[in-house]
Formats: sequence, C-alpha cells, structure tokens
Amino acid sequence: MRNTIAILLCLSTLQAQTPADRPIAGFQPESARRQADLEARFDKALNRQNFGQWMKRLSARPHHVGSPGSRAAAEFIAEQFKSWGYETTIETVYPLFPTPKTRLLEMIAPERFTAKIEETSVEGDETSRIKEGNLPVYNAYSTDGDVTGDLVYVNYGVPDDYTKLKEMGIDVRGKLVLARYGGSWRGIKPKVAAENGAIGCLIYSDPRDDGFFRGDVYPKGAYRPSQSAQRGSVMDMPVYPGDPLTPGKPALDPNRAPDPKQAATVTKIPVMPISYGDAEPLLRALGGPVAPESWRGALPLTYHIGPGPAKVHLKLEFDWKLAPAYNVVAKMTGSEKPDQWVLRGNHHDGWNFGAADPLSGMVAVMEEARVIAELARAGWRPKRTLIFLAWDGEEPALLGSTEWAEHHADELQRNAVAYINSDGTGRGFLRVSGTSALELFSQQTARDITDPQTAAPVLDRYLASRRVAGQEAEFRIAPLGSGSDYTVFQHHLGIPSLDIGFGGEGGGGSYHSIYDSYDHYVRFIDPDFQYVRATAQLGGRMLLRLANADWLPFRADATARAVRLWSNEVIKLADDMRAQTKKQNEWISSGALKLAADPRKTYVVPEPKEEVPHLNFAPLQNAVTRLEAAAAALTLVDPAKLNPTKLAALENALRLAEQKFLRNDGLPRRPWFRHMLHAPGFYTGYGVKTLPGVREAIEQRLWKEAGEQIGFTAFAITAYADWLNSAALETKQ
Amino acid sequence: MRNTIAILLCLSTLQAQTPADRPIAGFQPESARRQADLEARFDKALNRQNFGQWMKRLSARPHHVGSPGSRAAAEFIAEQFKSWGYETTIETVYPLFPTPKTRLLEMIAPERFTAKIEETSVEGDETSRIKEGNLPVYNAYSTDGDVTGDLVYVNYGVPDDYTKLKEMGIDVRGKLVLARYGGSWRGIKPKVAAENGAIGCLIYSDPRDDGFFRGDVYPKGAYRPSQSAQRGSVMDMPVYPGDPLTPGKPALDPNRAPDPKQAATVTKIPVMPISYGDAEPLLRALGGPVAPESWRGALPLTYHIGPGPAKVHLKLEFDWKLAPAYNVVAKMTGSEKPDQWVLRGNHHDGWNFGAADPLSGMVAVMEEARVIAELARAGWRPKRTLIFLAWDGEEPALLGSTEWAEHHADELQRNAVAYINSDGTGRGFLRVSGTSALELFSQQTARDITDPQTAAPVLDRYLASRRVAGQEAEFRIAPLGSGSDYTVFQHHLGIPSLDIGFGGEGGGGSYHSIYDSYDHYVRFIDPDFQYVRATAQLGGRMLLRLANADWLPFRADATARAVRLWSNEVIKLADDMRAQTKKQNEWISSGALKLAADPRKTYVVPEPKEEVPHLNFAPLQNAVTRLEAAAAALTLVDPAKLNPTKLAALENALRLAEQKFLRNDGLPRRPWFRHMLHAPGFYTGYGVKTLPGVREAIEQRLWKEAGEQIGFTAFAITAYADWLNSAALETKQ
Repeated sequence: MRNTIAILLCLSTLQAQTPADRPIAGFQPESARRQADLEARFDKALNRQNFGQWMKRLSARPHHVGSPGSRAAAEFIAEQFKSWGYETTIETVYPLFPTPKTRLLEMIAPERFTAKIEETSVEGDETSRIKEGNLPVYNAYSTDGDVTGDLVYVNYGVPDDYTKLKEMGIDVRGKLVLARYGGSWRGIKPKVAAENGAIGCLIYSDPRDDGFFRGDVYPKGAYRPSQSAQRGSVMDMPVYPGDPLTPGKPALDPNRAPDPKQAATVTKIPVMPISYGDAEPLLRALGGPVAPESWRGALPLTYHIGPGPAKVHLKLEFDWKLAPAYNVVAKMTGSEKPDQWVLRGNHHDGWNFGAADPLSGMVAVMEEARVIAELARAGWRPKRTLIFLAWDGEEPALLGSTEWAEHHADELQRNAVAYINSDGTGRGFLRVSGTSALELFSQQTARDITDPQTAAPVLDRYLASRRVAGQEAEFRIAPLGSGSDYTVFQHHLGIPSLDIGFGGEGGGGSYHSIYDSYDHYVRFIDPDFQYVRATAQLGGRMLLRLANADWLPFRADATARAVRLWSNEVIKLADDMRAQTKKQNEWISSGALKLAADPRKTYVVPEPKEEVPHLNFAPLQNAVTRLEAAAAALTLVDPAKLNPTKLAALENALRLAEQKFLRNDGLPRRPWFRHMLHAPGFYTGYGVKTLPGVREAIEQRLWKEAGEQIGFTAFAITAYADWLNSAALETKQ
Repeated sequence: MRNTIAILLCLSTLQAQTPADRPIAGFQPESARRQADLEARFDKALNRQNFGQWMKRLSARPHHVGSPGSRAAAEFIAEQFKSWGYETTIETVYPLFPTPKTRLLEMIAPERFTAKIEETSVEGDETSRIKEGNLPVYNAYSTDGDVTGDLVYVNYGVPDDYTKLKEMGIDVRGKLVLARYGGSWRGIKPKVAAENGAIGCLIYSDPRDDGFFRGDVYPKGAYRPSQSAQRGSVMDMPVYPGDPLTPGKPALDPNRAPDPKQAATVTKIPVMPISYGDAEPLLRALGGPVAPESWRGALPLTYHIGPGPAKVHLKLEFDWKLAPAYNVVAKMTGSEKPDQWVLRGNHHDGWNFGAADPLSGMVAVMEEARVIAELARAGWRPKRTLIFLAWDGEEPALLGSTEWAEHHADELQRNAVAYINSDGTGRGFLRVSGTSALELFSQQTARDITDPQTAAPVLDRYLASRRVAGQEAEFRIAPLGSGSDYTVFQHHLGIPSLDIGFGGEGGGGSYHSIYDSYDHYVRFIDPDFQYVRATAQLGGRMLLRLANADWLPFRADATARAVRLWSNEVIKLADDMRAQTKKQNEWISSGALKLAADPRKTYVVPEPKEEVPHLNFAPLQNAVTRLEAAAAALTLVDPAKLNPTKLAALENALRLAEQKFLRNDGLPRRPWFRHMLHAPGFYTGYGVKTLPGVREAIEQRLWKEAGEQIGFTAFAITAYADWLNSAALETKQ
C-alpha cells in the first residue's frame, strides 16, 4: 500500500497540502481550517457496524410502498432520527399504486408453454425463502389487458429498432413484442411498442446484458440466474413522475376513488417482465429472419425475429388502489440562516428486500444524520437548516419525493439551498451527477475523502479512471436525467441537486429481484461497507460544508462551460443529421441501398427524409456568450470583501439563480419538466438530454419546434445571465 | 427488375455505352469491339449444368492430397482438359504430408471427459455418411506430442491476448491453451502459444464466430453444428509455404526418407481442432478470473480463463509420409506470343468432400477452359499462351502450387504475364485482390459482367456496397496476403497475380468440415450456380483479355497510388505508436493504471516500453515520389503510337517490372518471402501486411531493423521506378 500512496502523491497537486490548508469553496481560510477539524471529527465518529445492522434489519422483509414492511421501515427510520434529536415527522401521501391480481403468460403455438414468472429461493440467501408479503415479478403501471397474438422479437425496443424492423418488412401491429432489458429505461419499451401498434409487451433480461455472460450467476456469483426477472416501473415518467392522477399537485387525499383510466402515464398496452429462463422457449419458437448481429443475446440459440410462429397469450389484471407512502422528514434547524434548507435524501422502499437498492444508500444517510447529531450534541450547530428525507414509493414512480415536493413546492423554491440524493451505492469509483454550479464544490469534497481500497484520494482514483478511459482528466459533474428522487427537485423546481455514490467494481445482477438481499450485498457488492462509509463521508461533508459555508459555493462559470458544450453539441447534431440525411437520401435515389442489400432477404428501402434545414442558432449562441460574460464578471467578485448585507444578497441570488432556467410552460408535450438545460429523454427514459427542448425537436425532426425551443432556451439562459449580472452589479453599489 | 436497372444506369456512367463501345485497357478501339463480340460468344457458350455435374462428381468422396480421391480428381480433370484439346500433363510433386495415427483429448480433472472429435452424419447430407477414406478432424503439421497440464483459455490466441493475460497475472508456461478460431489465421495460435511457453494447443470453433450465434445450424441452416470442427493447416506458412523439407526448392523425389524434425515449419507443440460440443465441458470446468468481455463467446456459460482446475491430456501421433501431389497442367499455345504465359489456377484437393472449397472455383476454371477450347475450335486463337492449373495439396500448405512453381521458377519469371487464382466462390459481391497494376484491368472486367441477382453490372453492386459501408466509392484491388495458391507467384516470384471470386451473401459454417458438401452448397451457398457462372465469366474475360490484348494492360499509376498510401500508413503507424507509448508510460509512472484497476482483481501493471524513436522515412518517401514521377511519365506514352519493336519492348518491361519489387534476401527471418510491397503477416498468417519489412519491424519495436527495412524497401521501389523510367525513355529513342 505504501508504494501506491507514494506514487499517488504526484497525481494530486492538492495532496501536498495538509487537509487544514486546503481551500474550500465558500469558506474563509480560517473557517476552512475549522471545517477541516469538524470533518475529521465527523469521519472519526462514523461507525461501520451501523450500516450492516440497519441494512440487515430493514431488508429482512419486503418493504415496497403500501406494504407493512414499508410502514415499519419508515417508523424505524423516524424513531432513529428522533432518538438522535431531530424534529421528525412522517408525512404521508396517497398516490395510485397498482399491484398484480392476475399474471398469465403462455405460449399457445407452435407448442404450449406457461411461463413460471417466479423467483425461487436459493442456497445461502436467507431472505429468498420468504414468501409472505412478497411482490411478484411485474411491471408497475402496466395497464390491465388480455391479449393474444404472434410474437416479434424487437431487440431493446427503442425507436431505432423499429426503423430496422421496417426495413426488414416486419410490422408489429396486432402482435406482442418481446424486448430485452437495456438500451433504454424499461418504460420506453411498451411506449414505443404501443406507438408502433403492438398489443402487448414482454421484457426479459438477456444473459448477455444481465446474466451468465457477465459473470457466474447467483448464488455461485453475483449475476442474475435464469429464474430471475427484473421488476420495475413502466409508467411514462418522462411525461411526469409521481402519482399519475395528480400531475404537478400533491396526492394528499386518501379517500379519493382512483380511476386508472384517467392516468395519462399508465401504459397503453399490458407489459410484463420475464426471466431468461422463461424467455428461452419463446425465442426458440420464433421463425422469420435471423436477428441482426447486434440484436443477438447470449442464449444458446439462433435469434430470430418472427413474427410467429410463436403465439402467446398475456393476461394481466391489477388492483388499482391508493397506497400510503410514508416519507420521513427530519430537521435540524440552522443557527444563523434557518430559512436556508440543505436537503439530503434517499428512498427507503425497495422491490422486496432491497438491500443494495436503496438500503445501501439509506443507511449511509442515516449514519450521516446520526454523526451530525452527535456533533450537534457536542456543541456544534449548523448555520443553515438540515433536512433529512427518507422517501417511500421511489421504485414505482418516485412517488414519495414527487408528491412531497409538489406539496412543499413554494417553500422549497424559497428556502432550498440544494438537494443531495443518493440511492444504491457500491464498491468502486466516485459518481457525482447534478447541477454544474456545484462542480468545484463536489470536486473539493472528492479531494478530501480517501478511497478505502487504494488509500488514494477519491478524486485521484476518479481522475485516473477517466484518463485511462481516454476522457478529459478533469472532474466533471454529469447532468442528471432521471431514475431517482432528485427528479422533482432538479427538473420541476429548479433546485440545485446532486446525486452521489460509488460503483463500478461490485458485480451484480440482483437489481429489482428478490436476490437484492443482505446476503448478496455483503458477498458481492461492498463486503465491509467500506464504500457505504465513503458515501456517508461524501454526503456528510457536503452537508457540513453547505450548512457551514461563509457563503454558498455556487459557481456560474462551470454552468457556463457546460452550457457552451451542450450548445455546441446541438449545433453539431443538426449539422451531422443534415449530412447524414443527405447521404442517405442519395443512397436511396441512386439505388445504392437496394443494390448493396441481399436480394434473398426482404429489404424495404426507407423513404427519403425531409432535408435538415439550417436552423437559426444565433439566439442560443448569443445567450451562451452573455452567460459566459456574466459568469466571468461574477468570478471577479470576492465574497470575502463584501459587507454582510451585500454578501447575503449575493448568496441569495446565487442560491435562487438555477430557477431562472425554468420555463413555466415546460417542455413540449410534458409541461411538468420545466428545466431548459436538462431532462430525462422522452425516448430514453433515465438517460439525460441536455438542452432538451432543442435537442429532442431536432432528433424528432420537428424543425419549427426546434426554432421555437432555441428561442425559449436562449430566453432562459439569458434570464439566468441577467440575474447574475444584476447580482454582480449589486455587490458594487 | 426493370426499375432496378433504370435506377442503376445513373450509377455507372460507363453503362451508357454499349459493350462494343467501351474501352478495354490494352486494346485498340477496333480490337476492343472484336473482343466484346468474342466475350459475348464466351458468355453464351457457358453451360451452367456442368458446374453442378462436375461438383457432384468431384465431391462424391474424400479427395485430400495423397488420397485415391485426389488422384482420381486429377485424372478426371486432366481427361477433361485433354478432351477439349489442351496439351495436358499431370505433374507430380512429393511433399511431406502428415496424417493422424493417434488423436486423444481427455479432461482428467476436475472431472473426466473424453472429446469425441468426430463429425457425425446428418439428415439430408448424402456424403456425410461416407466413412471410407475420410480424414478425421486434425490440424496438419502439428508436431507429435503427449502432454498433460492445466488448461488456460486464451481467446483468439494472438499476441495481444497474451499481453492481456500477463496483465491479469496469468502465465501459460507448462500449460495447454484453448484458443478459439478467428482473429488470425489458425497457424498463428500454436506458434504464439509455444512462444509463450505453452505445451499444447486446442483450437475450437466458438458458436459466436462460427455456429448458432450466426444462424441456424446444419442441416436446418447453413451454420456449423456443435459436433463440427474446422480442420486445417497449422504449418508456419508465414515463414514459407509448401513442403517443409524443401524451402525454395521443388519436392521432386518420391524416395526421400522424410525427417519431420528437419521441418522448420512444423509446430513446436501439439495442436488439435475441436468442436464447440467438445469445448463446452472444458470451458465449463475452467476457474480463475472471468474472461474480458471481448473474449466471451456464445456458449451458455460464464467464460473463465483458468488456469485449471480443468486439466487435460492431449496425445497426438502422425504418420509422417511423403504424399504425391498431382498438379494438372493444361496448355493452349499462343499464336503470336507463345512465350508469354497467362496462368489460371484453382486447387482441386479438399478437406474431405470440399464442394465449396475448392470445387466451386475449380468447376468455374474448368468451364472457362472448356468454352475457350470451343472458341478455339471455332477458329479463334489466343495470341498468348494460356495455361490452366488444377493444384493438389493446397489445403495442407499450398503444396502443389508452391512445389510446382519452385520447380518452374526460372521459366515462370521469364514468361509469365500473370497468375489468376480462384478458390471457393459463392453468392454475393465481387472480390478481387492482387497486384495493383491490374486495378484498371480488373475494374473494366467487373464493369462488363452482370450480377445475376440484380441485373446490375457487378462493378456497380461492388461500388454500392462500398458506399453504403462508408468506404471510398472507387474500385480498389486489395493487396494479397496468403491463403491460396497465388502465394508463390505473388510473394516469391514477383509475378503479377489476382485472386478472384464472389461472396458475402451465402451463409456458411461448413468450412473445412465434412459438411462442405454438394448438398450444403446447393442449399445454402449458390443454389443455381449463378455465381459460379459469374466467376467463370470473370476469369474467362480476364484470360481472353490478357491473351488477346494488343499490349498488356499493366498500369504503374495504380501501383504508385497504393504505395503512397502504404507509405503514409507506416509513417502514421510509428507516430501513433510513439504517442501511445508515451501515454501508456505516463499512465504507468503516474500510477493511473494501477489506480483505475479493481484492487480485488489481479492486475500486473505493464513495464514501461522503450520510447518510439523518430525514424528516417525520407528514403522511402523519396522513392515513392520517384515512383509517382515514373508512373506519370509512363501514362504519357501512348502504346498505340509505338512501332511493333518498341511496343514489344515496353510490354515486356511492364510485364517483368513487378519482379523489381523482389529482394533476393527476402524479409527478415523469412527469406522465402521476397516481395517488399506485401506479405502475409508474421503474426496474422493470412492477413496481409503492406511494406511488410518496415511495418512489422515497427510493430515488433525493432527500431534498427525498421531503419534497414526502410532502406531495402526504398531500394526496391526505386529499382521499379528506374525500370519504368528506362522503359519510358526507350519508347522515345
């Protein structure tokens, strides 16, 4: 180990400084020194035993939203917070949450086969034996349905796959599709299938993406065994997450009579996840052309597309009820700025036992809270208010966080400093996504935490992995799409958000299965909870710094850099599409596509596409230039030299600036998503789209809309720049 | 079809001309018109029924070198040639050819399993039932051996794979390796394994590369079934092909007592091919780390590397005998220039039934000869001499062609115009590789043949496939590596060579198995022999044009263009390696590689590499410039305006020019390979390396040698350029 450390010293120039000497954004030198001491005490007080104990307890039985386990989990967590001295409440919301009544999948031709859709208990996994209260394998917010038809294999089931099917002369209308997990968030698959006329959708985990191809299967290894299927939501969350019946409003009434037909985000066709054990007979029974090479998985068969002769019958019925979602809210009021709220959250509900997802992150948050309370008892007080949040109902649709934040929207937009989220965490490399303005803040936090395996700073390991992967050797926050509870804060309310954790080295195929258990976690993911501890160090430092900073560490220059990058990207996207369209149209008109195709295979030459016009990107470019200038002007302001009133004004301006990126009418066809810099992709689901109004209009070839969205996006960026300019100006008056 | 044709017209500007109007390189306009008529008669006389009849007859029993079937095939072919009026002889050579006596592969730990190494008969495949005279599954020129040891999976078994193994801390010394087919010519695998200290080598066909992953397996589909293994040579042919005991000399003595220990090209360790059915239990029994993702195949298991616990015992004994190889030589003497020989060849031996490989090409050559003889009987005579060659013993080591050409080396270097080779051919796109000087000649031939499936010119289909694949939409002859009988002509004797055929659309996994049968060919490869006919059209036209041309159509400008390209490539190769080495060394010294690695997995940081010096490429660049100037000067000479003496001198100069690229001492460590522009790769086998002396010295980091080879290569190019300059000058005197 010592050699490693010696080598590492030269990687980080910051490392030569002792912790107490290092600058911390938002802190005067003297405060930074005190802060370093505080953080050292924080680290020392962390007790790794708590992680395992809490995880074991909370993962001992199913604890999905609406279950007794979820209620018990919320109560246990609330008790802990209370016992540590937090003002704690359980705030309950009542969203629509369907559970399965009937699940039937059978192949009726060319031979009979009934899917098992059941995860069996395995040796050495204690909780896999529990049947009581278990949620079976299903996709939440699938519509009810009873459909029969020929089966078609559609690869990942994303729009490009249907383009390819069309070229092969295959039409899914009136048929059921079999898609594999991967390539998009799962909810995209039934959405695109329905858009293409399919009447039902099956989603299976191919062992190539999630099974024996990746590593030995559970319980021998960490990976998904043949009987395991991935549960998960298929709600159309890129339109809006949360209760499908109350978009933009909190679901507070437990006595409503819910009508799922009113729910815009429920799928149009029935959809069910299956294991690769259940998928294999279906795939074997498919005829038709052999699937393109990139569509083929790891099952020992020749992948055909169909349609048929495999014919399947899928019947699904759900119990459409309101479920109580118990959000635990625990507050420690700030001593100097009680109206500035630093929020820290993680969900507590899981698909069944949920040890990795979400408890590995949840227990880190709990330990952060415990230690901070211990520091508080020893005399330290945060200047700003800390609020810990343990969400319920994240898995089905970010239910708890969305409804809670919709309920408290006004206060949050007034008072929030930032929302720091975590979810499952594991062994490996630092992962930080979120608001660009927190880039330097995040980098400095990573600088000051030691990687448990290598004893190098977490930042150095992160940078080494980027370099070796051929990426820019700089710390860069990735923008947020969706997939966890930051969504409402970041995209709906414009509150600076971060999503943090570690990962990349723990192997795994337990995701959303009953094998996401304590036993699996400690064997394969983070055996000694070293990285859960590192997550707590990370989250804890972020809280302590935001709570204690002399001024809030938002940096608009990072925002400007990121927005310039994205702006260049969308301009290049249009240029590339123009060149690609031109080339493709020429290939069509000259007959080259037809000539290069195998005449013995069906090949439908695509229709020529409308040429890509030159778009007027000038408003966007000018707005970004204005933003760069404003950010540059702000870097010249030294907060340390401002009087308290001016400093407070500047800090508030920076804290609220992110909301300038919101557009009241939101994005096209999804007004709930209001942030003009990023959103989950309409056709990717979790995957982020930056400058989404502009980017998705181009991708969908909506040229008029692209022009409009350039304007709206430029307007938001300009509003942000002007807000910064005013803030800078005020410091001088 | 009509629409297709209409669209195609605009693709080929040449198409607007009628065949009789089109220019043909080497022909005066009036001769070109006569030639077009002749070619139309040639096409008309082709009889598709012959292909099937001959293929069926010749593939009815095993006909590998040394077998009664091979002798019968040679005699049948010779009879045909004779009956058509050719001066025909069978010239026999006697190379060393081992056949198996003992083949045993068993796993002895952690459980027992004995490999079947047998291809069983399948429904609907007539010849697969034949046992008599069948050569079992084996690799020719494996050494004898009886070895036992732990097994290690080494992916494709190429040098990069061993680099990766080293990084993973895995040593193959004293162990047996299991490599999959692909990624290199098979003979490279035991060579590199032995260099790394392995004691035995198994090569299996992974279903990902060659089996159910690609398509339905035989007999349902065309692809390799689980019991099928790929036979083939593992002789170290990149050093020299042909009889291992007589490098550079013909093996004419049938009475020698062969001593395989004297054979430099026999493998150092025993090696055997196995099916994926036989490989699966071995792979399942491997422990150790999981193989890197790109190493994993399509068997339904987690690919581990080992070493062990799988322990195997491999015992191989061969009968090391001389085998008679019967080369059929059939001549039609030219009327005007009998001393200019146009050679056309294909081998007749196969691994067992060999319908696709080699008979699909062989029957095309026979039909070309038959029709040309018919034309001759009707009064036409070739100006130059035509020689048809049906080779024996190509499969084990290009035995027949190499020994024959070594025997006739002087005459060939004096008299040969060009050698046109084919081998297996199938449905799909034109494939022409060879001497760059024949690029325009080949392009014009492709222009004048109609693709049987689309009715477009073969050239247009070829160009369309290049465009759609994003390649330059120009006709380009690929340089030749090895893998068929052109090798001795091109690389050892410097005779302009072409390798021709069609392919890319017929599916297949019958390669070198007993399922390469007539039944397989007509079901899956070229059911109506349309592309065999197209191959005969191609070969026939090439022969008729070279035989009849007013002057030979060699074009040095294409050579100059190609050499400039390759010269730029090797310069870039050194630059890229320099940058890559610098980066990698920096990653090593800074610790980034170590930091980015998973500490729970063994990772041995590579040693820093010597920096890549700047090489003096000036001699090469100057030589290429000189070549370009010489080629440009030659294009100004109009052969049509020369008097017969001068024309004859020019023609001879161009015909012999290619030999100027030969270096008497050959390439480093393989003097048999004398062409300085291209050679099969020392570590790729079949795959070509251009400017091989320079390129391989750089790849192997032999900087001094690279400098020397730049000199030798520049010398050869300059000699060629000067030869052209003299030829151009002489036309003016």
